[in-house]
Amino acid sequence: MRQKLRAAAAALGILALIATPASSEEGMWTFDNFPAERMQREMGWAPDQAWRDRVMAGTARLPGCSASNVSGQGLVLTNHHCVISCVTALSTTQANYIEHGFMARARAEERRCPNMNIDVLQGITDVTQNIETATAGAASETFARIRDAEVARLERECSAGATRCEVVTLYQGGRYSLHRYQRYNDVRLVFAPEHGMAAFGGDPDNFNFPRYDIDFSFLRLYENDAPAATPNHLTMRFSPVEENEIVLIAGNPGRTSRLRTTAELAFERDHNLPWQIASLSEIRGRLIAYSSLGPDQARIASSALQGVENSFKGLSGRRQALADAAGFARVAERQADLQTRVRRNRASQREVGDAWGEIEAAQTAYRGMFYPYQYLEARAGERSLLFSWARDIVRGSAERGRPDAERLPRYTESRLAAVEQGLRAQRPVTPAFEEIHLAFWLSKMREYLTVDDPIARRILGDESPEALGARLSRSRLADPAYRLELWQDGEAAVAASDDPMIQFVRAWDADARAVRARYVAEVEGPAARAHERIARARFRAFGEGQYPDATFSPRISYGRVIGWTEPNGRVVAPFTRTAGLYERATGQHPFVLSQRWIDARPRLDPNAIFNLSSSNDVIGGNSGSPLLDREGRVVGAVFDGNIHSLGGEYFYDGNLNRSVTVASTAIRTSLADVYDMPGLLAELEGR
Amino acid sequence: MRQKLRAAAAALGILALIATPASSEEGMWTFDNFPAERMQREMGWAPDQAWRDRVMAGTARLPGCSASNVSGQGLVLTNHHCVISCVTALSTTQANYIEHGFMARARAEERRCPNMNIDVLQGITDVTQNIETATAGAASETFARIRDAEVARLERECSAGATRCEVVTLYQGGRYSLHRYQRYNDVRLVFAPEHGMAAFGGDPDNFNFPRYDIDFSFLRLYENDAPAATPNHLTMRFSPVEENEIVLIAGNPGRTSRLRTTAELAFERDHNLPWQIASLSEIRGRLIAYSSLGPDQARIASSALQGVENSFKGLSGRRQALADAAGFARVAERQADLQTRVRRNRASQREVGDAWGEIEAAQTAYRGMFYPYQYLEARAGERSLLFSWARDIVRGSAERGRPDAERLPRYTESRLAAVEQGLRAQRPVTPAFEEIHLAFWLSKMREYLTVDDPIARRILGDESPEALGARLSRSRLADPAYRLELWQDGEAAVAASDDPMIQFVRAWDADARAVRARYVAEVEGPAARAHERIARARFRAFGEGQYPDATFSPRISYGRVIGWTEPNGRVVAPFTRTAGLYERATGQHPFVLSQRWIDARPRLDPNAIFNLSSSNDVIGGNSGSPLLDREGRVVGAVFDGNIHSLGGEYFYDGNLNRSVTVASTAIRTSLADVYDMPGLLAELEGR
Repeated sequence: MRQKLRAAAAALGILALIATPASSEEGMWTFDNFPAERMQREMGWAPDQAWRDRVMAGTARLPGCSASNVSGQGLVLTNHHCVISCVTALSTTQANYIEHGFMARARAEERRCPNMNIDVLQGITDVTQNIETATAGAASETFARIRDAEVARLERECSAGATRCEVVTLYQGGRYSLHRYQRYNDVRLVFAPEHGMAAFGGDPDNFNFPRYDIDFSFLRLYENDAPAATPNHLTMRFSPVEENEIVLIAGNPGRTSRLRTTAELAFERDHNLPWQIASLSEIRGRLIAYSSLGPDQARIASSALQGVENSFKGLSGRRQALADAAGFARVAERQADLQTRVRRNRASQREVGDAWGEIEAAQTAYRGMFYPYQYLEARAGERSLLFSWARDIVRGSAERGRPDAERLPRYTESRLAAVEQGLRAQRPVTPAFEEIHLAFWLSKMREYLTVDDPIARRILGDESPEALGARLSRSRLADPAYRLELWQDGEAAVAASDDPMIQFVRAWDADARAVRARYVAEVEGPAARAHERIARARFRAFGEGQYPDATFSPRISYGRVIGWTEPNGRVVAPFTRTAGLYERATGQHPFVLSQRWIDARPRLDPNAIFNLSSSNDVIGGNSGSPLLDREGRVVGAVFDGNIHSLGGEYFYDGNLNRSVTVASTAIRTSLADVYDMPGLLAELEGR
Repeated sequence: MRQKLRAAAAALGILALIATPASSEEGMWTFDNFPAERMQREMGWAPDQAWRDRVMAGTARLPGCSASNVSGQGLVLTNHHCVISCVTALSTTQANYIEHGFMARARAEERRCPNMNIDVLQGITDVTQNIETATAGAASETFARIRDAEVARLERECSAGATRCEVVTLYQGGRYSLHRYQRYNDVRLVFAPEHGMAAFGGDPDNFNFPRYDIDFSFLRLYENDAPAATPNHLTMRFSPVEENEIVLIAGNPGRTSRLRTTAELAFERDHNLPWQIASLSEIRGRLIAYSSLGPDQARIASSALQGVENSFKGLSGRRQALADAAGFARVAERQADLQTRVRRNRASQREVGDAWGEIEAAQTAYRGMFYPYQYLEARAGERSLLFSWARDIVRGSAERGRPDAERLPRYTESRLAAVEQGLRAQRPVTPAFEEIHLAFWLSKMREYLTVDDPIARRILGDESPEALGARLSRSRLADPAYRLELWQDGEAAVAASDDPMIQFVRAWDADARAVRARYVAEVEGPAARAHERIARARFRAFGEGQYPDATFSPRISYGRVIGWTEPNGRVVAPFTRTAGLYERATGQHPFVLSQRWIDARPRLDPNAIFNLSSSNDVIGGNSGSPLLDREGRVVGAVFDGNIHSLGGEYFYDGNLNRSVTVASTAIRTSLADVYDMPGLLAELEGR
């Protein structure tokens, strides 16, 4: 059946294929626009509204990741790599949970994660009309500011207490949705395996399959210092999934660029990605060198290093997808098809005007301010906790005194609580580690802005990047009490602070704000205004049966448990099994079994499914998403895509793109036979 | 006059401009095909044959660089960055010549550089006919092998004693020249300033101008343990050059790709350069981290780090030049123009056939073996001395037993002496530093070949890249006596060696040789065969008045002392002056003045020319070249190009490309007023 549909679709030719997704599994659909009929037609089954409502209520979002709620007492399943910064923060030389794992066998042992919060979607409201009304007639230079003011108003009026609202731009501006979340701020770590087992195979195996990772962890939601009651939870199924079984993934894919223009993607390919890849490579080298200094350094760096290596591999794959002539042709053809359709429709043509040309002009403007925008604003102080706190304190204290509509988006009324939570977080600061990130950023800032740039000179003064980084790394902001004191005392206290990081951030904040304002007026606004018109034309041409680009908001994708065939003919089966883990272990990093897994071997079923591949369309941010069966039961935690899925930022290829999941069978055997967690297992089994 | 000529040329349109170089200063000309008439016409003066012969005899080549002979007692002027590996090798914790400089005030204090040799060109013979006869009728798969066998024969028959001959491929295969050099193996360090002064401004200022570097050093050629008599030396002129003065540069530009096809350059842009840039960035990060561990580590890493940073910046500029749509269009237009001319000429068309298509096919084949070829062969063990010695010992001892025509090119009879010299060199080995390079290479090898690649598995065995790198770094090959013992005892001794690095290299040498053979048969041969035909068509279309791509062989370029105007309108003057050095010094690395320069300030002329910019067409390899006035006197040592010259790999833009020179005035004041080297100065002044 699927084969026939594919063949029929293929016969229509590539341009026609763009009208509906090319592969039946393509799409990261919003909960309020799920293509149930299409799925029913293609897969022979589709979830009904009740199923979708239940799943929406049982899934969750955490910083950068996805999760599911799997017990009535607030238990949450996600990936280990989604909680690694929490595990790092809770670890010390004496209690190294990165190396040895974390296992709370009683509620009292569960440990609060600093700076972790979990959002559960409560409802979606279309607010396109509000935004359109507010921005009607706005010039492209002021568009983004006016839009953001309306966003701030909508979010403020909707948010209250634990209800946190967020306006999401969909279809690159074709729709705006107000998402209403319940936010949990007290999230505690329940279970995390050893990092070496969660990330078995490390960077070499990342985005590869066959794979043998137990990349899962459990958290618990707390309210009023007690486990939250979560009656809308999902349940886990521990019986193995079958090959070809229909599976769905509900999670928060972070970002795709499938609706962006060729000018934007050429900029990505030729400028942004190469620059980012080079930056990531160098900081990777610095972090590897730091890690090799000893076990403490390795523990402190592990979360950052894993993040950097993951980004490097992901962005390299994306660059490759665009550098590939056939890859870029797909993008160009998609745009040419829409342009052809626009030309055939006079109303559409009038409305769109030269939107593509305007976006190209915005990219040209961006190129002229790219490095200042990145180094002074968007990525200033990247990976330095001290810098991020200082900027929040300096900016937040200034912004709070302004009307909501005039504030920087991060500091609008409805978002202030999140900023404050970040400042409160008890996160350990290692000055030597901060110094690495600060010196790296400052040296690259000087390299790309050049030594003679007046702002670069103002930032560095007479200091070298290394000396300045070292001085700033001794900021008192490592102490949360001092952070909160400044935050609460406000602008005058901040101005009077003698802390080097506070003084440093203040000294050139006006420069950073200026380049931000230029970016918003000359790049973001004009591009958004033009995208809005393109999006309208796209709806006119293709109707409502489309999915928007990923925006780190809740989505569902559907597919099957299935392997794939490599272009060279090699067939990759959809399952790996426990025995394979032991075969792959060399005893050398990153292929080292923990003692627990060595000891457990006789107790384990060598044929149990470990990891699996499925054809669902996912992308980074989906990490930790539940893999769901037709009954809505959780049969695993999605933790990766295969190497072909990296191009998924730009297109989905049903023959090759695959998501990768740690199977519930592996989760069960881990808890039962390796880590001796009967209580946790009983809770999962509803016993 | 120049303006008029330029305007006239511009009026011919861009395609016609390709027939002769677009800018009058374009071209790195061979000594036997210098465009004297053209230069006379354009510049109003040109050097005659005697001038060119004198300059050829007075200039020299050293590893990766250029130089001039500036006294009758073998004194050689080059850049500090051309001798930095010698300075590093001679330095110790106690005698840190990197930090403090090296000043031999008597002959007896001059110190031999390990692994340094200097070649002085004696004559050029066209051997195109020999190669063509030898390769007539050869299939493209065997072409490179047959060509290399003939090259080996020509070089062997010409070389003897200190005469070392080299066949150079010019015009990407349109011509072959036999270069006869006199080789000096005993080269001693005479003078090197502090690294911080030679490279003042460090990486941030590299390829930038205005600039304030005293990037020069002096070496001396020795024969029979005494200074070599060098009657054909050039002389220095210490009076300042004038703006617009005609200047020539004689040196050895390393490589350009101006005659390569769009398929080859697209491969560079999309695959090779991005991969190299990422690799360089990561090793840069690792080296920066190592350097920061202490002054010894900084000294040990300085040469490698400077090389890595220089390559990073250079390759990034090249990638940018190709990623720029206008840049790539220049390349594409050049090719399209030639193709148009070929189509108009039936003989040409018949001869060329589908040469461009064949090269594209070779690139596709290359892509399929790119990472194995790089990691197993071309860049295996990159930057590890121990690895390079082991490979020379393992391969050399095997190759010596074969007829010359069947050997790998590096080990043919005429080249063996150079290999042996490398093995003899007294170069200090720091195991921890070796370990960095070995672990880096092995980890990237595994990353790019993937963990499951059978050769990657064979290379690593059960070890991690880090553990294996650490084990190999303890090889006995650090001892030159052991290296020579193995080299002299030959294959059986090598096979019996229990040294870990020797055993390691032997274990998978067959794999490396196999991928090399595939590369030679499927990429190098077919591309060379096709390029030969394109080159013939190019001669047919444009005649002999062309310059070949740079091939690290002696060339002359001409130009004027001149600044430039940035695209944003900023005018850059051609000179910097001593006062500017002091203004630029912040006291923070890399803008730190040495105590000697601080002390000397009152003695110096603030208006003396320090560095200068000229319009000569140069590229990496030209470093250390003499800048020559019309009388053939040395008025400086070229040490860099400006940022626009990075695209010079692919095209020369007369409005923007500039070479950068440390002026003889700065050299003189350094020796006279800063470093107190009256003897050296007297020698330079012929007193």
